[in-house]
Amino acid sequence: MCRIAAYSGPSIPLENIIVRPKHSLLEQSQHASEAKLAVNGDGFGIAWYDQDEAPGLYRDVLPAWADGNLTSLCRMVRSRLFIAHVRASTVGETSRQNCHPFSYGRWSFCHNGQVPHFPAIRRRLEAALPDHLYGARGGSTDSEMIFLTLLANGLADDPNTAMAKTLEQIGEGREPVKLTCVFSDGQTLFGFRYASKGKAPTLYASDTLDNGGLAFASEPLDGDKWDEVPQGKIVELGALKTRQAA
Amino acid sequence: MCRIAAYSGPSIPLENIIVRPKHSLLEQSQHASEAKLAVNGDGFGIAWYDQDEAPGLYRDVLPAWADGNLTSLCRMVRSRLFIAHVRASTVGETSRQNCHPFSYGRWSFCHNGQVPHFPAIRRRLEAALPDHLYGARGGSTDSEMIFLTLLANGLADDPNTAMAKTLEQIGEGREPVKLTCVFSDGQTLFGFRYASKGKAPTLYASDTLDNGGLAFASEPLDGDKWDEVPQGKIVELGALKTRQAA
Amino acid sequence: MCRIAAYSGPSIPLENIIVRPKHSLLEQSQHASEAKLAVNGDGFGIAWYDQDEAPGLYRDVLPAWADGNLTSLCRMVRSRLFIAHVRASTVGETSRQNCHPFSYGRWSFCHNGQVPHFPAIRRRLEAALPDHLYGARGGSTDSEMIFLTLLANGLADDPNTAMAKTLEQIGEGREPVKLTCVFSDGQTLFGFRYASKGKAPTLYASDTLDNGGLAFASEPLDGDKWDEVPQGKIVELGALKTRQAA
Amino acid sequence: MCRIAAYSGPSIPLENIIVRPKHSLLEQSQHASEAKLAVNGDGFGIAWYDQDEAPGLYRDVLPAWADGNLTSLCRMVRSRLFIAHVRASTVGETSRQNCHPFSYGRWSFCHNGQVPHFPAIRRRLEAALPDHLYGARGGSTDSEMIFLTLLANGLADDPNTAMAKTLEQIGEGREPVKLTCVFSDGQTLFGFRYASKGKAPTLYASDTLDNGGLAFASEPLDGDKWDEVPQGKIVELGALKTRQAA
Repeated sequence: MCRIAAYSGPSIPLENIIVRPKHSLLEQSQHASEAKLAVNGDGFGIAWYDQDEAPGLYRDVLPAWADGNLTSLCRMVRSRLFIAHVRASTVGETSRQNCHPFSYGRWSFCHNGQVPHFPAIRRRLEAALPDHLYGARGGSTDSEMIFLTLLANGLADDPNTAMAKTLEQIGEGREPVKLTCVFSDGQTLFGFRYASKGKAPTLYASDTLDNGGLAFASEPLDGDKWDEVPQGKIVELGALKTRQAA
Repeated sequence: MCRIAAYSGPSIPLENIIVRPKHSLLEQSQHASEAKLAVNGDGFGIAWYDQDEAPGLYRDVLPAWADGNLTSLCRMVRSRLFIAHVRASTVGETSRQNCHPFSYGRWSFCHNGQVPHFPAIRRRLEAALPDHLYGARGGSTDSEMIFLTLLANGLADDPNTAMAKTLEQIGEGREPVKLTCVFSDGQTLFGFRYASKGKAPTLYASDTLDNGGLAFASEPLDGDKWDEVPQGKIVELGALKTRQAA
Repeated sequence: MCRIAAYSGPSIPLENIIVRPKHSLLEQSQHASEAKLAVNGDGFGIAWYDQDEAPGLYRDVLPAWADGNLTSLCRMVRSRLFIAHVRASTVGETSRQNCHPFSYGRWSFCHNGQVPHFPAIRRRLEAALPDHLYGARGGSTDSEMIFLTLLANGLADDPNTAMAKTLEQIGEGREPVKLTCVFSDGQTLFGFRYASKGKAPTLYASDTLDNGGLAFASEPLDGDKWDEVPQGKIVELGALKTRQAA
Repeated sequence: MCRIAAYSGPSIPLENIIVRPKHSLLEQSQHASEAKLAVNGDGFGIAWYDQDEAPGLYRDVLPAWADGNLTSLCRMVRSRLFIAHVRASTVGETSRQNCHPFSYGRWSFCHNGQVPHFPAIRRRLEAALPDHLYGARGGSTDSEMIFLTLLANGLADDPNTAMAKTLEQIGEGREPVKLTCVFSDGQTLFGFRYASKGKAPTLYASDTLDNGGLAFASEPLDGDKWDEVPQGKIVELGALKTRQAA
């Protein structure tokens, strides 16, 4: 399990989402309350957008809370749209190439969940990638493969169709597929929760924050303006009508 | 808070203490049960003795569970006496120089606890070091300074006197000093628990293990052959008569 | 020996100095031509200024050319004043705390050179630091100690006097002291070359660059608009009248 | 280009090959004299054999000369057969998964050279791997793929046939394939030099060393007892009759 936070709105220092909120992503890296594992110390990453089409990418294998560079970057770097991720891997060695977010061209993607039968379908998924995406594989995770498969399936043209095709290719194994993800093309921030059976990992969308922006987060960062993203349908940040009546 | 495991006896692969026991040090790095923090992910280290007088030292800033090299070393390296440590720092950047164990000449030392008023006494402690130890400082922790001060106070000649002098130099602050440590000259393994007020961090000494050796550990590694090290007195491994009557 | 590049002027992406020039700092990290060692692979660092008084700091122990994060940061981060450094250490373990630039409050500092008799004077220099700077030591290099001593000697009030006092405290050893350094308070960029005997490591100041800014660099980054900084006197970037007659 | 050193014989500390010789592998990591690049600072690795069938593996992304752990391991660990490698990558990010040696079961393998048309054949080579080797890919280098392909082609049964099949699968591109490699099953140490055109990277086999062992090395470690491994044929260490007449 991992934890995700993402923001879109007026340009703000990254720390306003990642460090400063009472239940910030950094706080969630040590004390997650809605995940199986309370600690997400197996690396972290940030993809942020500025003037370039391609996002900046900063990933490292240290626990987020132990990286002095991260604190400095979060204080100095401002962005109008960014995705951040802290990782809890259950097995194996940590490497930068396996840290989220992943990026390709103008797209960035991060994932919380698991495809338990990934070893059995990895060859088939890789074989289905067109050459330019085949050569873009950097690590060995199911998460990166889901991202590349989404791109291969036309994520840029129609996210919902791309997601449906991808889920079909992934298929079912003995253990349920769980896939909560946040991704962006630098303009729109998308969130998605899915479980082939049972509950997908949590994801919340905020109502307008104090600075006028909006956010996705695995767990509400602060206050009460958060609504759970429903399962099974891609949600564009801002499109979820929040706090309707209740 | 941190977790410690140390062994003395017939030469065994490091993994027999660090990886294999049910509640091994590696397991304690993720699921400590007798510490304030369940996770000790801010680096780790091993000092082990073989033919040389000086121990080998392997320390890194990754969480112990994420380091593929550690698994390999623990499987391959055999030793008759070693000390291992997983670290949970509460503040600040992690660096190898701040990871335990520390070593100097034939001595190695690791520490679980805290001198809360260390910033106020650091200058005085450093000034009291003789030149050869002054130049040996590698990091910036209270733990390393305690070790160097112990050496300056004659650890090699009389551990109990060196410890008493060191505690006197440390003195008292507003918050209680807590100091549970394990150290060795390559022949004897020493354990010590101290708190200027209240309970010191846990430390247990094993009765004879299956392979004929003995161990110290912050939490029993396995089975029921473990006795708590009493507070206030340096204990040599094996000297604590364990499981007396009960 | 190390290599330095620093910039002040209209806000530009860091890569315009660090990556893009023909003989960029990144290029100098692998193929320095005016240093004893052609390779500077023992870590790197950047201090950059934006709206905050305190600079951002990004330092790592990898060779600059091997760090994917650095490439991304250099492309995305814009700054009106920054200092970058690639390190070639001759002995010992590399750590982030020993990587340049160092920073304290609004000041940043990097150094190319050596105080060969540093072990003999370290205790005296440390003892002379006031408490707030004594506690600010993070690593164990002569470079960091020079920076803290400069601050203690009133760098903020009068750089030339602070430098003179510092050099006097450093004194002479058997081997000559060499000290080429670049430092800033976020407003002015200072350069300084000094050798107690012989030639100090190189440092050049640029004439106005294409974008209207100015730079210091250990070796000219590109083209012919560069003048050597003279030895023995602190130079403010822009104050050196360059290309006078030619 | 990279540098390799490997040893088989009476058990010795790793440092006797990696650190102590006048032109040791560590020395070659900074001052290689027969390679295009004098510096090999993009990670390093050691595979060593002891009682287990599977070798121990220690790899890291730091330059070999900057890793304090390596010094300690080389002093403490003894082995009867080991392979060590320092890496100079020309492009891209360094990761442990891309550091040599690679290991699978009882085999270890390291490589100095390049398959320039690897991107064009990678999909075909991967598709040809049987499932157990397909799932064993950890990084993204041509070197690892050559190793896995050798295993798929029956390295354990007939090294020469496996190598011939592998070279045929690799085929030719516009730039010549260069492949100097050293590999072992824990019993025999094999060396191989190949270039589809021109000269392969250097590899030398030693005559009996002072301690009675034998070694391969990219450049002679010391003294004059070294003969160049001829191109085009797998050589078992010791089988090359050295210093025949001269």
